[in-house]
Amino acid sequence: MSAEISSPNDAVIVKVRDAVCWITFNRPKSLNAINDDLVAALADITDALKDNTDVRAIVMQGEGDHFMAGGDIKKFERALVKTSNKEELRAEFSALLDNVHKVIINMRALPQPIVASVKGAVAGAGVSMMLACDLVLAADDAFFTLAYCHLGVSPDGGSTYHLPRMVGLKRSFEIALLGDRFDAETAERWGLINRVIAADELKAETDKLAKRLASGPSHAHAEAKKLLNASLNTSIENQLDAETAAFADCTTTEDFREGVTGFIEKRAPEFKGT
Amino acid sequence: MSAEISSPNDAVIVKVRDAVCWITFNRPKSLNAINDDLVAALADITDALKDNTDVRAIVMQGEGDHFMAGGDIKKFERALVKTSNKEELRAEFSALLDNVHKVIINMRALPQPIVASVKGAVAGAGVSMMLACDLVLAADDAFFTLAYCHLGVSPDGGSTYHLPRMVGLKRSFEIALLGDRFDAETAERWGLINRVIAADELKAETDKLAKRLASGPSHAHAEAKKLLNASLNTSIENQLDAETAAFADCTTTEDFREGVTGFIEKRAPEFKGT
Amino acid sequence: MSAEISSPNDAVIVKVRDAVCWITFNRPKSLNAINDDLVAALADITDALKDNTDVRAIVMQGEGDHFMAGGDIKKFERALVKTSNKEELRAEFSALLDNVHKVIINMRALPQPIVASVKGAVAGAGVSMMLACDLVLAADDAFFTLAYCHLGVSPDGGSTYHLPRMVGLKRSFEIALLGDRFDAETAERWGLINRVIAADELKAETDKLAKRLASGPSHAHAEAKKLLNASLNTSIENQLDAETAAFADCTTTEDFREGVTGFIEKRAPEFKGT
Repeated sequence: MSAEISSPNDAVIVKVRDAVCWITFNRPKSLNAINDDLVAALADITDALKDNTDVRAIVMQGEGDHFMAGGDIKKFERALVKTSNKEELRAEFSALLDNVHKVIINMRALPQPIVASVKGAVAGAGVSMMLACDLVLAADDAFFTLAYCHLGVSPDGGSTYHLPRMVGLKRSFEIALLGDRFDAETAERWGLINRVIAADELKAETDKLAKRLASGPSHAHAEAKKLLNASLNTSIENQLDAETAAFADCTTTEDFREGVTGFIEKRAPEFKGT
Repeated sequence: MSAEISSPNDAVIVKVRDAVCWITFNRPKSLNAINDDLVAALADITDALKDNTDVRAIVMQGEGDHFMAGGDIKKFERALVKTSNKEELRAEFSALLDNVHKVIINMRALPQPIVASVKGAVAGAGVSMMLACDLVLAADDAFFTLAYCHLGVSPDGGSTYHLPRMVGLKRSFEIALLGDRFDAETAERWGLINRVIAADELKAETDKLAKRLASGPSHAHAEAKKLLNASLNTSIENQLDAETAAFADCTTTEDFREGVTGFIEKRAPEFKGT
Repeated sequence: MSAEISSPNDAVIVKVRDAVCWITFNRPKSLNAINDDLVAALADITDALKDNTDVRAIVMQGEGDHFMAGGDIKKFERALVKTSNKEELRAEFSALLDNVHKVIINMRALPQPIVASVKGAVAGAGVSMMLACDLVLAADDAFFTLAYCHLGVSPDGGSTYHLPRMVGLKRSFEIALLGDRFDAETAERWGLINRVIAADELKAETDKLAKRLASGPSHAHAEAKKLLNASLNTSIENQLDAETAAFADCTTTEDFREGVTGFIEKRAPEFKGT
């Protein structure tokens, strides 16, 4: 039995149910804009999930009508009022971003697959957060904008890492330099999200997908996630060797025995994640 | 005149005709599931093709109604019956995968363009094999599933290398973690295959494409293949230098002289592959 | 005030208007096929643009009905008539390509976003040139072919670097090995271009997009361009660090102050590029 997963503050609600960890951004009045509390909570929660074998899938979602509408612009304003000194500004914003980036690194390093379940506004840091998830279900009312350029800054949160790995370089430039809104259908066509869902079915479909992932071969899923995340920075020779090591490792699990037996007996396997 | 290309066993049929090498997986009763014989034959054949200048294009296809439906699960079962020792399992499966991976490396290293001509089931290792080909024609009855997760293992055969280089990271996660079937139209939309063909025209269209490639500028094709395969692991500066070296090398061929003359004379060039 | 941007010859016309630099290939009788003069002019102009802070966006376009129809094949022919010596041919064509490649490197290194505004024939080096731009607007009469294979050479101009980063590996092989024509709609579907425009509206839409980019946060745009161009050759950790440094740097600009103020005051920001 792993330690309980809990949130250090109200900016994030976290619940584990049927091996799924539901992480809910909980600042609905601010459209779940990311702030220090929210980042701190995500850092704690993703740290705690690393070695938690009770959790076999993760969902990230927003309370209210939106996923996440960017950053804490009022905090930006306060920083600018406080100082015009360039080194102080650089230091302040570097510290801010480093905290967000630890969460992004954590999300990619977690063994569990992460589903983003998005609706309404997905803007700025909301896009970055969504892109760092492994799979995305989007309500048909969702709209997306990278938005950073409207504030006069370049994108962060790993968005410039993930975008070219999902939509290619030309569309990445469009998304980053223009910051225009686009809808869920466009996002699906471009490969930024996996599926568009009628808004009133998003909850049910998210639940279904999360349960399905949580009842999957968790070790194999963790290896697949690691392999895919490493892929675009490695040679074919290294990747094939990594695939062999990962596959060989999976063959020592109970789930592999169950998978092979299920196949031979022509029935669906019942994976335990062990 | 290069040495004749032959298969060491019945699991693969190989024929060279009009400078095209036709490689046919020949285990139709098992839906051409990959087994030791098939891997050994592919290793031999791809080794022999390396320096064969008579062959200027390659086709991979399946005998019967399917391309290739995954691996030899009964062999997996025998391995699991024989031992529960984790090191023995790791060693057995590592050896198995290493053999497949030599074929994948060979396919990418071959100077000839390889066309996968697929229909019916394209599952597990069948997907990996198809992805390692350079171009894919698919019958409209083809269906695809990466399938590994249903057995409780992570994907192999270079599929985690090739997928993000074709469909982006989000769709790669979907294909790898869910293992759902998708059809030829979806595969085309995603960029996994080049063209969907009416099933009863697949043979004729494959023949046409193979002949066209085989009558192309073979040295230039080999250089283009090398450049594209290297692209995602290199810097723009290195890739430009490699393009210059490749192009300069092509200008010393008879085919370049023919290509330029054909252009000036406003007629189609007749390339000889020299 | 930066130095004036001028062209050393008639092969290229260059004009700066409202912070936009319009670069027009001016060999309409040859469908703007790239030749020594055109390359020399582009090298000079892109060199001069590097430190020019008056120019905040760049457009590349072709005079007449076409963008650019490949290379100077008559020069190729003269080289082949002059010599059959392989080393001499290698040296001659290497020098030729190195000059083109300096322009490609310059284009990617420029701080300003570059819009390709294309119509009619976009062939061979025209495709390479277009791919090295950051955004592409295409008239609905535009057609594309990589074409190199028809001459018996492998592609150059960074096309083998950019293609897999935009359309994935399978489509890259198709485009490079077959050299078939495809239309603007297909190019958009594949992610090679950003938008298809009715031919008679191309000029107006290009103007609009260029002005929009030129009135954007130029420092942030430069950082975003640098980040996206570096993305596919770096690790997530390095890219996140680069994002932090770029973002922190942007926060010291006047444009950031204006962007934040505009956001708080619920009005569109007026960026000055400083």
